[in-house]
Amino acid sequence: MDKIWSGRISGSTNDFADKFTFSLETDINLYMFDIMGTAAYAAGLKKVGLISTDELLNITEGLIKVKNGIEKNKFRKNSYEDVHSLIEYELKNEIGETAGKIHTGRSRNDQIVLDEKLYLKNAIIDILEVLVELELNILELAQKNIDVVFPAYTHLQKAQPVLFSHYMLSFFEKFLRDINKLISNFKDCDFMPLGSGACAGSGYDIDRDFLCKLLKFKNKGINSMDEVSNRDYFQDFIYSLSCIMLHLSRICEDLIIYNTSEFSFIEITDEFCTGSSIMPQKKNPDILELIRGKSSLVAGNLIQFEIMQKGLPSTYNRDLQEDKGIVFNAFKESFSSVAIFKELIKNIKLNKEKIILNMKDGFLEATDIADYLVRKGETFRNSHNITGKIVKYCIEKSINLYDLDLKTLKNYSPFFGKDFFENINLNSCVDAKKTDCGTNSNSVKNNLKFSIERINIIEKEIKKLKSQVPDFKKLIKEIKYALD
Amino acid sequence: MDKIWSGRISGSTNDFADKFTFSLETDINLYMFDIMGTAAYAAGLKKVGLISTDELLNITEGLIKVKNGIEKNKFRKNSYEDVHSLIEYELKNEIGETAGKIHTGRSRNDQIVLDEKLYLKNAIIDILEVLVELELNILELAQKNIDVVFPAYTHLQKAQPVLFSHYMLSFFEKFLRDINKLISNFKDCDFMPLGSGACAGSGYDIDRDFLCKLLKFKNKGINSMDEVSNRDYFQDFIYSLSCIMLHLSRICEDLIIYNTSEFSFIEITDEFCTGSSIMPQKKNPDILELIRGKSSLVAGNLIQFEIMQKGLPSTYNRDLQEDKGIVFNAFKESFSSVAIFKELIKNIKLNKEKIILNMKDGFLEATDIADYLVRKGETFRNSHNITGKIVKYCIEKSINLYDLDLKTLKNYSPFFGKDFFENINLNSCVDAKKTDCGTNSNSVKNNLKFSIERINIIEKEIKKLKSQVPDFKKLIKEIKYALD
Amino acid sequence: MDKIWSGRISGSTNDFADKFTFSLETDINLYMFDIMGTAAYAAGLKKVGLISTDELLNITEGLIKVKNGIEKNKFRKNSYEDVHSLIEYELKNEIGETAGKIHTGRSRNDQIVLDEKLYLKNAIIDILEVLVELELNILELAQKNIDVVFPAYTHLQKAQPVLFSHYMLSFFEKFLRDINKLISNFKDCDFMPLGSGACAGSGYDIDRDFLCKLLKFKNKGINSMDEVSNRDYFQDFIYSLSCIMLHLSRICEDLIIYNTSEFSFIEITDEFCTGSSIMPQKKNPDILELIRGKSSLVAGNLIQFEIMQKGLPSTYNRDLQEDKGIVFNAFKESFSSVAIFKELIKNIKLNKEKIILNMKDGFLEATDIADYLVRKGETFRNSHNITGKIVKYCIEKSINLYDLDLKTLKNYSPFFGKDFFENINLNSCVDAKKTDCGTNSNSVKNNLKFSIERINIIEKEIKKLKSQVPDFKKLIKEIKYALD
Amino acid sequence: MDKIWSGRISGSTNDFADKFTFSLETDINLYMFDIMGTAAYAAGLKKVGLISTDELLNITEGLIKVKNGIEKNKFRKNSYEDVHSLIEYELKNEIGETAGKIHTGRSRNDQIVLDEKLYLKNAIIDILEVLVELELNILELAQKNIDVVFPAYTHLQKAQPVLFSHYMLSFFEKFLRDINKLISNFKDCDFMPLGSGACAGSGYDIDRDFLCKLLKFKNKGINSMDEVSNRDYFQDFIYSLSCIMLHLSRICEDLIIYNTSEFSFIEITDEFCTGSSIMPQKKNPDILELIRGKSSLVAGNLIQFEIMQKGLPSTYNRDLQEDKGIVFNAFKESFSSVAIFKELIKNIKLNKEKIILNMKDGFLEATDIADYLVRKGETFRNSHNITGKIVKYCIEKSINLYDLDLKTLKNYSPFFGKDFFENINLNSCVDAKKTDCGTNSNSVKNNLKFSIERINIIEKEIKKLKSQVPDFKKLIKEIKYALD
Repeated sequence: MDKIWSGRISGSTNDFADKFTFSLETDINLYMFDIMGTAAYAAGLKKVGLISTDELLNITEGLIKVKNGIEKNKFRKNSYEDVHSLIEYELKNEIGETAGKIHTGRSRNDQIVLDEKLYLKNAIIDILEVLVELELNILELAQKNIDVVFPAYTHLQKAQPVLFSHYMLSFFEKFLRDINKLISNFKDCDFMPLGSGACAGSGYDIDRDFLCKLLKFKNKGINSMDEVSNRDYFQDFIYSLSCIMLHLSRICEDLIIYNTSEFSFIEITDEFCTGSSIMPQKKNPDILELIRGKSSLVAGNLIQFEIMQKGLPSTYNRDLQEDKGIVFNAFKESFSSVAIFKELIKNIKLNKEKIILNMKDGFLEATDIADYLVRKGETFRNSHNITGKIVKYCIEKSINLYDLDLKTLKNYSPFFGKDFFENINLNSCVDAKKTDCGTNSNSVKNNLKFSIERINIIEKEIKKLKSQVPDFKKLIKEIKYALD
Repeated sequence: MDKIWSGRISGSTNDFADKFTFSLETDINLYMFDIMGTAAYAAGLKKVGLISTDELLNITEGLIKVKNGIEKNKFRKNSYEDVHSLIEYELKNEIGETAGKIHTGRSRNDQIVLDEKLYLKNAIIDILEVLVELELNILELAQKNIDVVFPAYTHLQKAQPVLFSHYMLSFFEKFLRDINKLISNFKDCDFMPLGSGACAGSGYDIDRDFLCKLLKFKNKGINSMDEVSNRDYFQDFIYSLSCIMLHLSRICEDLIIYNTSEFSFIEITDEFCTGSSIMPQKKNPDILELIRGKSSLVAGNLIQFEIMQKGLPSTYNRDLQEDKGIVFNAFKESFSSVAIFKELIKNIKLNKEKIILNMKDGFLEATDIADYLVRKGETFRNSHNITGKIVKYCIEKSINLYDLDLKTLKNYSPFFGKDFFENINLNSCVDAKKTDCGTNSNSVKNNLKFSIERINIIEKEIKKLKSQVPDFKKLIKEIKYALD
Repeated sequence: MDKIWSGRISGSTNDFADKFTFSLETDINLYMFDIMGTAAYAAGLKKVGLISTDELLNITEGLIKVKNGIEKNKFRKNSYEDVHSLIEYELKNEIGETAGKIHTGRSRNDQIVLDEKLYLKNAIIDILEVLVELELNILELAQKNIDVVFPAYTHLQKAQPVLFSHYMLSFFEKFLRDINKLISNFKDCDFMPLGSGACAGSGYDIDRDFLCKLLKFKNKGINSMDEVSNRDYFQDFIYSLSCIMLHLSRICEDLIIYNTSEFSFIEITDEFCTGSSIMPQKKNPDILELIRGKSSLVAGNLIQFEIMQKGLPSTYNRDLQEDKGIVFNAFKESFSSVAIFKELIKNIKLNKEKIILNMKDGFLEATDIADYLVRKGETFRNSHNITGKIVKYCIEKSINLYDLDLKTLKNYSPFFGKDFFENINLNSCVDAKKTDCGTNSNSVKNNLKFSIERINIIEKEIKKLKSQVPDFKKLIKEIKYALD
Repeated sequence: MDKIWSGRISGSTNDFADKFTFSLETDINLYMFDIMGTAAYAAGLKKVGLISTDELLNITEGLIKVKNGIEKNKFRKNSYEDVHSLIEYELKNEIGETAGKIHTGRSRNDQIVLDEKLYLKNAIIDILEVLVELELNILELAQKNIDVVFPAYTHLQKAQPVLFSHYMLSFFEKFLRDINKLISNFKDCDFMPLGSGACAGSGYDIDRDFLCKLLKFKNKGINSMDEVSNRDYFQDFIYSLSCIMLHLSRICEDLIIYNTSEFSFIEITDEFCTGSSIMPQKKNPDILELIRGKSSLVAGNLIQFEIMQKGLPSTYNRDLQEDKGIVFNAFKESFSSVAIFKELIKNIKLNKEKIILNMKDGFLEATDIADYLVRKGETFRNSHNITGKIVKYCIEKSINLYDLDLKTLKNYSPFFGKDFFENINLNSCVDAKKTDCGTNSNSVKNNLKFSIERINIIEKEIKKLKSQVPDFKKLIKEIKYALD
């Protein structure tokens, strides 16, 4: 197959060189976006008189056939260096020489940016939608267990009793930040690149506003040299994906630990576990481990992208071809991780008995004892010190806090009184956290409500963004409509 | 020195263990923010009646003394494990036991987040201000060379003639994206963490709105467990810094190449060059190389931060102590790189003669020849092919495009005409790029104007953000005012 | 399809969960190694009487059929979770229940390590062989241009004249270090894991020495818990690959720059270049750029692997499943980069005229002028200073060193004499570098000879290593022979 | 202060530029190596007649004074751009103009490589010595608990009973691989760079063999251009450090989990724990967490180094200045982590009661039940399946394996017999692992013995390497001796 740039180069390129430089295997994923971009661009050429109405109709009909051919897997796969050549030559097969006109005033340098941005907008919407489902499942799980008391950990040491719902809502916040990042990514990439040409701009006075409208871009790219060299939109996206994956890696770590027989706080339904080929008793949290493992891949994708950009001279360099593989991988791993995790979390069950049993021995009420003393008149530092000594005494005697009597307590501080025993228990400790960001039932209920409100707003926002992503059929219709 | 948590632990810790766990060397950088946070928090304690007016006055006076002591380097440096202990114990030295009350209902887990966020807001403003200066210098350089024709490169091969100003404006766009990222970072971190306690919330009903007002936060942190475990604000900042550094690495690469004797496009003033210890003729672009080198550090800082977060269990783990060193390093390298680069770029001179000489042999007009043929009636693909053959012919004959006569041209295509010679020259090629993102003089002038407008808006925005960063003296004044 | 661990888990797993956890798509690459390992292990079972001779023959015949089936793409692709299940169940299809015995005393945890190590040994040999070809091509290119004087750069500024062969040999050294790393990798991974079981060792007294001999391992793995959790061998390999790629990225950067029209030092044959879709004059060094780009991928693969390992609890965790994809990608990119680069470098041509022309204006002789003055009696620092001033004078006057007369020189130092002009020229400067690691012709010739000797030794070493990699047909033969 | 290259550059450099380019703050760490290198080089200059005996004596005396000055912190700190200038100018202060001669035929480009390699050899020895101590402590801990049965985990699920000593020895293997890597690093860097000059070799016929002998290098660097551009030795070292840190991060993760109140397997002495400022009951494994956190830093250092090298043009570029900071940081974090961890591990105590209690409910004997059935005649797959069903039955009935009677067992398989109960218990399961890499007591004892032998050999090897590191006093003595 002839290459579209073969005029200048004598002799055919080396087969192995072809294989090395061809990117079709990766960028075939962009075929739909390249076809849409081409159809819209043809309409633009017609609008400024560079092709005729008949030619435009020819081209759009041809592109529909090319699209169908690709989807039925009917095209010469190993003949093309990239998706742009594929579309152009397959179109030529369908409609003849007119196909040669669609490249007028366009370069692969701006064309690929268009394809990538259209891909990106779709990808952002896709992952936003599963993230929202994840958030809704988190809220549901929190709601279902709204009153369950649960040990909060710091340093993987039992720290203070909290509501399980409060714990779950802490992850709601993390994923909400990721969602907001993705929405920003969408807006930041919303600059239409066509008209940039190879790097200096197009030699044809194409109507960029018209192209924006057809392709549903909010803004026009401002500087052609920046447009063809910029890949920030992809890097920002991978960064957001890496944030999602890191958050997932943290909750997965928690759940893997809570799922051990030693903790036994949660149960993961069998559907989401796998067994061992040699140890029949095992019920391994493979999915959680895999997600944690995949977080490494996506963090690595981010650094791959940054290394690729480091020290690159201006505008387009072929190094940038590698951008697509990195992004496609990062998206695939992140999307599937969120998609499976949202199902897994929905099906988690709490072993409430084990949780209570576990908390009894944890001295989780220690902070509250210190606070009790403060309220009675001790300085905080002294109270803290006294409580530490009491805990030490209990550990040495192998007893827990509830086994102490008032007399013993008074040895440590005269401030202890009869009201100690009604004030210091797991439930009272939870409710004693008074701040609106804390774990007391009222705050948690308020925040749950607030979280539902926020996620509803997000859902509407996503719907709006979705309307800014072009659809093939509608695009063709609009092109035909514009002809009238 | 006693540790503030020593009640529970018997025996003293190992000296080497102390050295290993102490973080003061790093977090001393936060002293100002810890003092401000403590002063505001004390005012909060007073407001809800946990300390008296006198105690508050005592504490604020004490904190002023502690601050002065630190700034005069008068404090026991190796005695404290971290900046929080430093402030608390030095305060105790000044005012006695009352100092013990400032930790009431506060934990180092929420305190450190406060300190970090106050630091971050300052750091963002600092780097925004030098970035704006960089943008202004870029605009000035573009303005000064508004009409200079310059070769644009793709694949480090001369591609098309552009205006040098157009080239410079392409970097304006890149840094503007970075500026917008930083402004987002500021807004995203603007959640006041106090009231989160160790992880479950505070046992005291502190007035978080009052603290927000004093410390100039726009929002209250929503979930205490998220607040103490979250470090996204720092990671987002490092990501933005890495973007700046990557953009710098790209323009530095350009300038290093343009500064070679082979290109000779630019001259860097001697102030920003260094020599060789053994080769006296050298005038090395060390600063550009160092910035490119430092971009590696900052990209690496980002991945350090991500690795640190990977697989971390919920809420606070001591691993997070490493966050500060990473951020401080990334900020230091990025800030100094922007600060020196903005000076260097201001002082760059163009060797206009060398630039013109260089362009003559570059076949930079090739795209325009193809476009010429298209306008005359050829398909784009044929035009492209014909032009390729002409270029090849010129290279073989060692002539340039201006040496061709019409007869020779007509051998390649009958579409060539007399108007060829007036249409195809560097200046006409520049202006032939018709799109508003392209390099024609009008577009560039418009975009320059638009860039000035945008940077002016940014400057106002930064001024507004700056008013959301608390200042020590004003804070003390407000605290006293609130007492009345 | 039943999963081999399904006894314990009730209900079938979720389809999407299956898809998420299945690794066959990736680890199908290991089928040959899994089959060889299984055949050898079956022979081991026979040796200790756990299966009969007939069963062993059955199994080996069955495995041959399974292998052929896979190679003809005839197997149920989407039914298996991994390559181990694939082999076991396809074998069951061929020979019935006997297939169930091959897992006796073996676990997927030690089996996968075996497969990976067999894969690794093959991969190391493969890349060693292309690296040796690259080294030979470098030596050939050096030999062919043994006397060509070439500018050496520091800071991308012309520094000193060297022989082009000297320059090429500097890369020979770099790749030689990589070769030695790979040979170490081979030796470091040469520990046979079977007998480790799931993590505690095997419950059957299998003859590990016999397995070592069959599978050509030099050593037995020492600690079962380490064997199943260790992936250092893969990480070390990726590290070596990243070193190769970084070295390639550096020589590619050089060649991209030397290939600009501004430098014009080299010409890359058309086979290894591509053109532009819109700028017909371009002849882009795409392959060099792609290799530079791919170096980012492999460096990122290394960090992916390290992140995956970070904080992983002991022995096997499912996170480790991701190891294979990372290694396969790193190998693919590195192997193809070396393979194409060795062809490209073989076909590079030097533009000797341009090189000489370029050097004339470079003040490359400056170091030698300083050395000249030192030999005449100046201190080095003074000499260096004087030469710097002379260079500055020349630049201001736009002349080069050869245009200076003795009188002018004497203004700078009385030590200058008539012999200056015969002593200071490019060839004399090259030969004036007297050390055996320097660029004088004798040293370079000696080092070229020494390099040939070293690469010959390497070739023999690789042949020896190759004999430590098992071959399927030979293995089957040995198994049958062992039966007699 | 004058810069040593200031001849060519007019005007003084910008103050901020100075601050940006100066590296003294970092490379002051190399002062000892720079002084030793300079002393040896001066001896070399004397040997080839470039300086006189008196000058050499002057220089060595001067260098001793300079060294003392630096160690007493008496030198002009902010005046020098780097350690080389520092040494040269301080020497000039001491002995006058003769100091100017020590740079004859030497460049900062080869000098810094020398300094770095001398530093590296020292650093490798330092960390090897603490690693050996760590290994010895691991062996001691294993010996002390040679017979303690302990649960081995896969997927953080209890898998099989092993000896605690077997578990500890698995980490011995990991760190032994790291030790061997470091020994390779030492050998791979053992190439003396002096004589390379700026990049082309030295203009003076210095006796490189003599310098090798004085500075205790085994080999001479082979190609000057490679010598000044190569930093592989540092990168290899950081890679080895990252491997150590990843291994540490894994054992730290284990210990953090085993230290939870839920697992309660180990106790860390109070010296190595810290408390909470608000929760008095906490006893946090901060050191383990910090080491895990620091593993992120070092992995990031590795990628920083790789990014720095990516796409760098040949020989020296100023980017390489950043190499030292990266290495110094990586070494500092790794060295201190190993040094503290070896103390911590020595002081770990096992809670044997808790361990036994924990294992009772773990179904850890399941693999052995399956093996039991295989020995009785079942296929492995069936046995595995049967055992899985028994485990499920136990879980549903909340009983453990020891509660089953023979009748119930026979419902699952007729192969069960009376010998079941003596065959299936934790100790018999441990000893039933028959392979020499497995956990049976004999194998473990053998491997412990073998490990002691190996570490003894390593200790001798390190002693030998240590003799290849020059010592200042001895060097001065040898120089004087060589004069006679």
